[in-house]
Formats: sequence, structure tokens, C-alpha cells
Amino acid sequence: MKHIAILGSTGSIGRSTLSVVESYPERFQVVSLAAGRNVRVAFEQARRWKPRLLSISTEVDAEILRSHLQTAGMKGIEVVHGPAGTVRVATHPEVDFVVSAIVGVAGLEATYEAVKAGKTVGLANKECLVAAGELITAEARRQGNPLLPIDSEHNAVHQCLRGGRMEEVECIWLTASGGPFLYTPKSQFSAITVEQALNHPTWKMGQRITIDSATLMNKGFEVIEACRLFNLPPSRIKVVVHPQSTIHSMVEFVDGSILAQFSVTDMRLPILYALTYPERVPSTMRFSVMDLRHLEFLPPDMEKFPCLGLAYEAAEAGGEKTVALNAADEVAVAAFLQGRIEFEGIPTIIREVLSATKVDKLESISQVLRVDSEARMIAGERVEQMGSVGTRPLSTAMRVE
Amino acid sequence: MKHIAILGSTGSIGRSTLSVVESYPERFQVVSLAAGRNVRVAFEQARRWKPRLLSISTEVDAEILRSHLQTAGMKGIEVVHGPAGTVRVATHPEVDFVVSAIVGVAGLEATYEAVKAGKTVGLANKECLVAAGELITAEARRQGNPLLPIDSEHNAVHQCLRGGRMEEVECIWLTASGGPFLYTPKSQFSAITVEQALNHPTWKMGQRITIDSATLMNKGFEVIEACRLFNLPPSRIKVVVHPQSTIHSMVEFVDGSILAQFSVTDMRLPILYALTYPERVPSTMRFSVMDLRHLEFLPPDMEKFPCLGLAYEAAEAGGEKTVALNAADEVAVAAFLQGRIEFEGIPTIIREVLSATKVDKLESISQVLRVDSEARMIAGERVEQMGSVGTRPLSTAMRVE
Repeated sequence: MKHIAILGSTGSIGRSTLSVVESYPERFQVVSLAAGRNVRVAFEQARRWKPRLLSISTEVDAEILRSHLQTAGMKGIEVVHGPAGTVRVATHPEVDFVVSAIVGVAGLEATYEAVKAGKTVGLANKECLVAAGELITAEARRQGNPLLPIDSEHNAVHQCLRGGRMEEVECIWLTASGGPFLYTPKSQFSAITVEQALNHPTWKMGQRITIDSATLMNKGFEVIEACRLFNLPPSRIKVVVHPQSTIHSMVEFVDGSILAQFSVTDMRLPILYALTYPERVPSTMRFSVMDLRHLEFLPPDMEKFPCLGLAYEAAEAGGEKTVALNAADEVAVAAFLQGRIEFEGIPTIIREVLSATKVDKLESISQVLRVDSEARMIAGERVEQMGSVGTRPLSTAMRVE
Repeated sequence: MKHIAILGSTGSIGRSTLSVVESYPERFQVVSLAAGRNVRVAFEQARRWKPRLLSISTEVDAEILRSHLQTAGMKGIEVVHGPAGTVRVATHPEVDFVVSAIVGVAGLEATYEAVKAGKTVGLANKECLVAAGELITAEARRQGNPLLPIDSEHNAVHQCLRGGRMEEVECIWLTASGGPFLYTPKSQFSAITVEQALNHPTWKMGQRITIDSATLMNKGFEVIEACRLFNLPPSRIKVVVHPQSTIHSMVEFVDGSILAQFSVTDMRLPILYALTYPERVPSTMRFSVMDLRHLEFLPPDMEKFPCLGLAYEAAEAGGEKTVALNAADEVAVAAFLQGRIEFEGIPTIIREVLSATKVDKLESISQVLRVDSEARMIAGERVEQMGSVGTRPLSTAMRVE
């Protein structure tokens, strides 16, 4: 029986994790949950899963939850709140495995504390590796505990890496769908609208990650994540465009053999893999090999997608640079979604923020949060300077998620 | 330093093995070689590799070799001959690793003796698993030594299997090129000529294996090999047609993940893998992921290619049946190449021979050889009865290799 904590239980990965737990009641028990702002869902989860400990964003929400749980006759669920509450959820003494799925830098501290407390951590939060990866992976190595990736690409890499030892890895191949502008000539990039950028050919996702997929910055973040997770230099993490997104990623070994992983596109599969590693547990999630049909592969166009190159530069420099990369991208993408800058303004802003950032080594999560804030401020200033482009109808300016 | 014996050193796999040994002089030493009938090549190999022991087919050839080696001033190479000589090569006390690459049933006894003597064996001989697989794999398990497959499909499977435990395997997917008649309608099968059947779209190979690829019997043999090698029932070995032959094979795990392997098509890669397992050693054999381009996958047509179904039936029955399957196929293919039967006569003959064969359990290599002989006799009689079809010009009747 594995005892689970979920950081971000009301989000998409959190709910998928609970769905996995539901399918294997004999294997998993939910000990603690850190919910976001959805009190209703948090209450339902508390009722269904009876955790020992439940954390929610604000004190007010915690009060509401407590009173509702009392009314419902639910006893023995301690309700806490805020960042300190999330840390308590992550480090609960009965917990073996922590699913880190809080979006943004908010999940950093609790994840770091979970690793420090000797928990095995399944990572579904990009910032844990992009911003604080050097700290968190160093601590995990010190503890001798694995960090298990919960996203299809790095989970695929983790599986393929089982085909040899780390010293035997030549490189990692991350596959990229290529996004909606794979076949759009660069000359048309200045006219890209928000609607076009949000129209991803393969996936329905949140707005920021959809834009990050359109600029290939999402793949850039994954390059950085792979560097940290698998302790390899950026030069050994390669990207290949694979529009069908069937093969989730590949590992090339020094002898010339390449292993590739694929499966249905269902987040419950990498979650199950992480939760049960090193075992594999039967599931009903089946991909038919006969459905492979046509697969295509092509090199990424670094001219059209400068964000990918910026991510490689930040990965190479390390330290504060990748914190700034993530922060600047978040601000730039928000500005694009609001119609304040053009699509091509995204890499421009990120490049400027990176230039203004030092390469200082990261020593603590508080330093990460400080660099993150500073980078956001610089990025915000650059957005102001760039000004509203005003070339697109207002309808294309969308609310940031 | 690994000490190597090669059974079939003058054949294609044997020479590729020596090429691998040549590239890694610090890792491998050739202790003993069993050559075929090519005395000139055997002499060159003896001169180059200075084995302790060299075996050649006939006593006359052994005499010639001895005198040539003496003239060349080569001392300390013992020359033996015949099946007993091959067994001595396979069981030489200084040998750790035996590459079994003698074509046909001739290599069975020596391979079995090598396994019994506790050697690690790399298998490149189809008959070792198709005809005598039950005996050889049982003995390898008893010895606790691995049998390492040296052919691209099973070697790929072996690599993918590292992604989990055997109990976690759902099934194995062997890829098949589909051969030259993948898109030929069944109605035209009666008119297939020897030239057409020998015109394989992807590979240049020997005549028998080329025809076996055209009938898909080659894939049927691989299904049987996979059953024996990986100890799985035939129902869990599946075949998918993949005309580009890029992905060499795949393993599907119970959780729904599938791992696939690919690499350059160079036999030195699986040889190197087997020779160095469980290590992976750097090589210059590189496949570019960017060269993947288009990959296709489709189900095999069991109506058009009844040989594949016959192989599954024989695999299911086991015992003497798979010995007879291989023997009958060899006779039928030879008859087709000689213009004595039609392409569609191949499965007809095999089916008849299988019906006439018992399912008795195999107890010894001599029983395998007896069943093999009997099946050849029955197949020969059926060829006689079927008679020369005489519908094709004589030029299409080719000499059997």
C-alpha cells in the first residue's frame, strides 16, 4: 500500500491521479491533499477520499471547508491553508509518494520540502525543474530517491532509459508536435493572431501551454527539464518534430540503438507508471499498434522558432537564467493573449529579460522566487515599452487563464 | 576480455562477428572457429585471428589447412573437422561466449553442447530455436545463462524487454516488411514467378530467406523463435507489417506502454549488443532520427499468407511440429526455386507435412534430426506428387543456393 499526497488535487493532473487511485484501491491510499481555490471540488475530494490532512489556498476557504465537513459529519480531516499548509501536506509523516502538480512557482517550496523529507516525488510541475531543477534534483540525489516524471515526454524517456545505464546514453530525443505554425512561412509570422496561436492541431490544453507549443518554448522547457531530470548537458537533449505525437520520446544509446516509447495519450498512464515504479501494473489503457499508420519526423526550424534556441541558451548557462526564462515567457505569453504584443514579440521580450539576468548559482527556493519576481518585473516593463500593437481586432485578445 | 567461439565463421554472421571483434581488440579474443567449406577464407581467418582451435567441414579440408598453416609458419592452431570438431570449438574450455551462426540443423548439436557446457550463447541460427528451441532454452534456463538473439527483430525485443519484468509483458510485436507481394491481390498469387518472389523490396538476402519473406514464413519462424526465447505463448507474439522495416520490433507492457527499438540495419549492431550484454559499448553505427521520415504499419493478411498461420499452428502444438515446419518449408522453397511447384504450392506442402507429423515432445537433438529427415522425405514425396507445374519459362527456375 502506497500512501499518497497530491499537491494540486483539484487541477487536471490531481484529478487524474485520484482517478488512478480509484482504479487501484488495494495499492494506494490518499493521506493528504493540497487543493487550489475550488472549495467545492476540495470538499468533494475530502468526502470521497477522507484524507488525514487537506490544505486549501486561503484561510477563509479553510474555514468554509471545516464547517461544511462538520455539517456533513466528516471527522478527523485536518484542514490547513496557504503555503505552509501545502508544505505540511507534502511532508506528512505517513506519506510515501508526493504528486507535485501545482501550476507555477507556488508548488516549488512544498516539492523541495517533500524531497528533503525523503519522499518519492512524481513531478508534473514544470517550474520544479525549469526554475528550481538544480536545487531539487541535487537534493533528490542526496536522498537517493528517484524523481519520477509525470508528463508524456519525460515519462517516455524514463522508460526508454531502462534499456541501458546512464553512462551508455548518447542523447535523448524529445518529440514535438510542431504546433499550429509548423508549415507557416516565417514571412507570415508577424500576422499571427491569438486565435490562430490557440488553435493547436493536436491537443486541447490550457492557454499558456498552447501558446508555448506554438512558439516551441514548451519544448524548450522540456529540454531544460530533461537536462535536470537525467543529468545531461543540453547538447545531449535533442528535439525532433513529429506531428502525430505518437512516439512520446526516444533515447539513443552509445552503441547506436534507439528505444522509443508510445501509448495512448492519457495522463493516467504516466501517473500510474510513476506511482507504481519500478513495477508495471495492468491497465485498460491500450494503444493499438495497428493504429500507428503514418508517422512523420522532421527537424525543428530554429529560425522560425527562436524560443527553442533561447531555452537551449538558458539551459547552457543554468543558474538564474532558466528561472528568468520561465518568468519572462509567462509574462510575454500573457501580453500576447491580451493583444498587447505580437506573436514575434514573445521571443524578443524573453531574449531581453535573459540578457538582463545574471547566471548566479541557485542556493535556495527563496532566491528562485526573488529571481522569478525580478524577471517578471523586467518583462512587464518591456511589454509596456513595446506597447499595444493594436493591429488585431479586440476579439482576439483573450483573458489569460 | 571475452573469449569467443564462432560457429560458422566463414558465413555472413561469422564474418560480421569478426569485424566487431576487430573493432574492439581490447574486449574480445577469438579462441576457436568453426568454418564451413571455404578453406581459403578459413585459412585467412586462422592467419588473422590465430585461434587455438579451428574446425572445418571435411577431413580432406582439414589436411589442406594444416599443411598451409605449416607452410605459413603458423604454429599452435589445432585443426579438427566435422560435427565432432564443431562441438569441440563450441565447448573449448577457454571460451566464454559462443556465436551460433551455422545455417540449418548442422549447428544444433554444437550449440546445445555449448549451452550444456555453461557458455553464454549468441543465437543467429534459426533452427536452434525453431527446431530445437524447447531443448536449448530449457537447458539455458537450467544453466542460468542467457541466450542472446543475434537478429534484428529478437535483438530489438530483448532490448525493449529491459523496460519491465517478464511478468509485465502483454505481448511482443514483431515487425514484418511484408515482402514483395504485400500489395499483390490474392487472385494473382498463382502467377507469381521465381524472379518476382526473389525481388525483395528491402533486403538483399539468401534465396531461401528471400522466399520465406515473400510467403511471410520467415516471420512465422520468428514468432516461434520469440515464443521459445522469451517463454511466451504464440498468442502473445504478434506480427505487424511495417514496409520501411525501420522499427525492428516492439514490446507492449501490461500498463499499456509500448517500447520500440530501431537503429541502422547492420548486423554488427545486434552482434555487438549480444557480445557485450549487459553493457552497451560505443559504436559508430548511427541512425539519424531525422531520417525516420514516413513510417507505415498495417495488419498482415492471413488469407494471402497462409504460411504465417501454419507457423502459429506449429508453435501452438510444439514438439515435433516446428521441426517439421522448418524442414517442409526448406524442401518446398527449394522446389519452388527449381520451378517444380507454384508459389502457392509452398503452404500446401507444409500443411500436408504438418498433418503427417506427430506432436511428440522433443527429448534430444538426435530426435530433432530424425524428425527433420522424416519431414524432408514426406515433403519431397509431396513435391513429386504435385509434379512440375511447367507453366513458367525455364529461366525462372533457379539453382538453390
